[in-house]
Amino acid sequence: MAIAAKMNQFIEKSSWIRKMFEEGARLKKIHGEDKVFDFSLGNPNVPPPAVVREKLIELAQSDEPGMHAYMSNAGLLSTRSAMSTYFCREFCISMAHEQVVVTCGAAGGLNIIFKALLDPGDEVLCPAPYFVEYGFYADNHGGVLKSVPTLPDFQLNLDLIENGIGPHTKIVLINSPNNPTGQVYPEESIARLGQILEKKSGEFGHVIYLVADEPYRKIVYDDCQVPCVFQHYTNSLITSSYSKELSLPGERIGFVAVGPFIDEAPKTMEALTLANRILGFVNAPAFMQRLVVSLQGVCVDVEIYKRKRDRLVSALKGFGYELTVPRGAFYLFAKTPLADDVRFVLLLQEENILCVPGSGFAGPGHMRIAYCVDDWVIEGALPGFERAIKRSKAIQERH
Amino acid sequence: MAIAAKMNQFIEKSSWIRKMFEEGARLKKIHGEDKVFDFSLGNPNVPPPAVVREKLIELAQSDEPGMHAYMSNAGLLSTRSAMSTYFCREFCISMAHEQVVVTCGAAGGLNIIFKALLDPGDEVLCPAPYFVEYGFYADNHGGVLKSVPTLPDFQLNLDLIENGIGPHTKIVLINSPNNPTGQVYPEESIARLGQILEKKSGEFGHVIYLVADEPYRKIVYDDCQVPCVFQHYTNSLITSSYSKELSLPGERIGFVAVGPFIDEAPKTMEALTLANRILGFVNAPAFMQRLVVSLQGVCVDVEIYKRKRDRLVSALKGFGYELTVPRGAFYLFAKTPLADDVRFVLLLQEENILCVPGSGFAGPGHMRIAYCVDDWVIEGALPGFERAIKRSKAIQERH
Repeated sequence: MAIAAKMNQFIEKSSWIRKMFEEGARLKKIHGEDKVFDFSLGNPNVPPPAVVREKLIELAQSDEPGMHAYMSNAGLLSTRSAMSTYFCREFCISMAHEQVVVTCGAAGGLNIIFKALLDPGDEVLCPAPYFVEYGFYADNHGGVLKSVPTLPDFQLNLDLIENGIGPHTKIVLINSPNNPTGQVYPEESIARLGQILEKKSGEFGHVIYLVADEPYRKIVYDDCQVPCVFQHYTNSLITSSYSKELSLPGERIGFVAVGPFIDEAPKTMEALTLANRILGFVNAPAFMQRLVVSLQGVCVDVEIYKRKRDRLVSALKGFGYELTVPRGAFYLFAKTPLADDVRFVLLLQEENILCVPGSGFAGPGHMRIAYCVDDWVIEGALPGFERAIKRSKAIQERH
Repeated sequence: MAIAAKMNQFIEKSSWIRKMFEEGARLKKIHGEDKVFDFSLGNPNVPPPAVVREKLIELAQSDEPGMHAYMSNAGLLSTRSAMSTYFCREFCISMAHEQVVVTCGAAGGLNIIFKALLDPGDEVLCPAPYFVEYGFYADNHGGVLKSVPTLPDFQLNLDLIENGIGPHTKIVLINSPNNPTGQVYPEESIARLGQILEKKSGEFGHVIYLVADEPYRKIVYDDCQVPCVFQHYTNSLITSSYSKELSLPGERIGFVAVGPFIDEAPKTMEALTLANRILGFVNAPAFMQRLVVSLQGVCVDVEIYKRKRDRLVSALKGFGYELTVPRGAFYLFAKTPLADDVRFVLLLQEENILCVPGSGFAGPGHMRIAYCVDDWVIEGALPGFERAIKRSKAIQERH
């Protein structure tokens, strides 16, 4: 074996997911792109707001010297200031640019947070189901991801979180609106979580950080609000990106913001900035940093996603699928009619429908349907979803 | 202590470099930007070629659907193909897009290589002086950087490299044209290095990879050629970026290319691609990936850097500085007239001249002068360089 042993394991482990993707590609080749209904990827299908293109043209035409040059590893002052000014408004809290590091998306943000905070063996506690990459991110920096189940409606089980915090817990990681469940944690939950973390930090004699991964913050429905962790717990960090709200996921632009009263603020910021540098990000892409300066608060039309959600939710419920209605993001996490989610997903594949088994998110017995797709994908898939649940009932009766 | 212990150490360790930068900022505030001669940063001052702006405008005006979307973690097919086609020509070797991963610059490239290849405790052997970030990059992924000295002219000491390779050596890392020395390793050296690695791989029973970090490949003078490692050693990887040749360092766009006959090619590419994903890069910025498609082989006017080199080299030699003439990159690594390089650099600071002590590159007794600066910086600094060497002679005579 030439490559790293751990990477070899990771490749083996992820090979069944890859096989599913390969199967999808194979199906598209056989039946045509327009006959395969692909709900497997969280790749926003809604185009960026028109102002994005206008600003890109403006920027491209600029001949400002040094506009593509190196900069502070924490990002351009103008970008950090635009962000912190906007956060003041959005979070109703006092913030300055010194509390913001511009990052290569939220994935970059989580990696610099973990690099900055985790000592070897430190634990990151996370409610399950969760975004599968979290485990890799923690492991990258010597940490260990531990999870506790959520309630049946995927809300935080605060008792389990409290009991799950041990002497090695350094970070509690939440993701709301959630990938894969689409749930949003209400203000009361976050407030109680803050109290628990306060108590446990005291009990174990070290800071336990609350990290909120919020790339879907603006993609919410039914007047749902995403509370701000800064208002409920001092040692909080927020990471997010413009990937979903501006439909720019390939451009890798996001941020980490630290709570205004976080312990050892200057050292924490130094550690995050150094992590951004030495992990090889160096800085978030300069062009995109300049782009987002004037796009704070701009968002794609969320109604488009809401219509897709409503259509899918009502149709699937009509067919007999059990699901908790998602309040944000563009994922629907439905119970699979067969307990074996992988088996049911293969059954869907026979209908040319591609979903990801819940097992891939530590949520077995479910499937993730990413509905950030064109309407024809949803409409075309519905008969297949109906046939699949009928077939699975027949299978169950046989046993 | 709340942040990671190791990061705390790193911050402490790097604090004297930071202090120097802070001193520079202080000097600029007191004397004005135009009275401080800053040679401390490798931030190219030559603007990008005009075609970069033209292509940026073209791209910004495009309304191709999904142009900012997620893509394969290895990069856009069109970008990978453009790169591999160009490499065929540049390296006189047969290559395909499957051998290329598009990365967030060469820093991103090195990090995914180390993540993909290093097991805990594996060693990366590197000739000193070297770019200080290499140590962090190896450490990020559980590796250890070991160095062996170069010859007095900063060429490879192949005997020391051969003796330095042990059972834990997994990678030999070279950087030509070199930062900080500006030296280029000739074909004969690379050929012999290949033979050594072939022999040692056999001796220790595992592949020892040759990794060439080549962001300055096109910044060469005096008809100097940078040989291609692929032609001299099978298990080679090249990483580079467009930061210097297109003056786009803030945009974070580069690549990793693996040798056409590397062992376990598909698995190696899978590991690199997975590393790109899980380290949080996800993919290199989409906009810049599209930009470089049509800019293969385009380069800033190297003559501009050459003129700066010539001016500095002849002036400094005239003042009595000892140096090996750089053949590439935009760094001059001169002996400091005082053995204590930090002390001499502080002496230069009194002349409002900012350089980096060689100690920062494992090359004590030297200083790095980054001459990618405006001509007025060079001209304005020369009297100070002259006074500083005179003063240092006076200091030495006193002792």
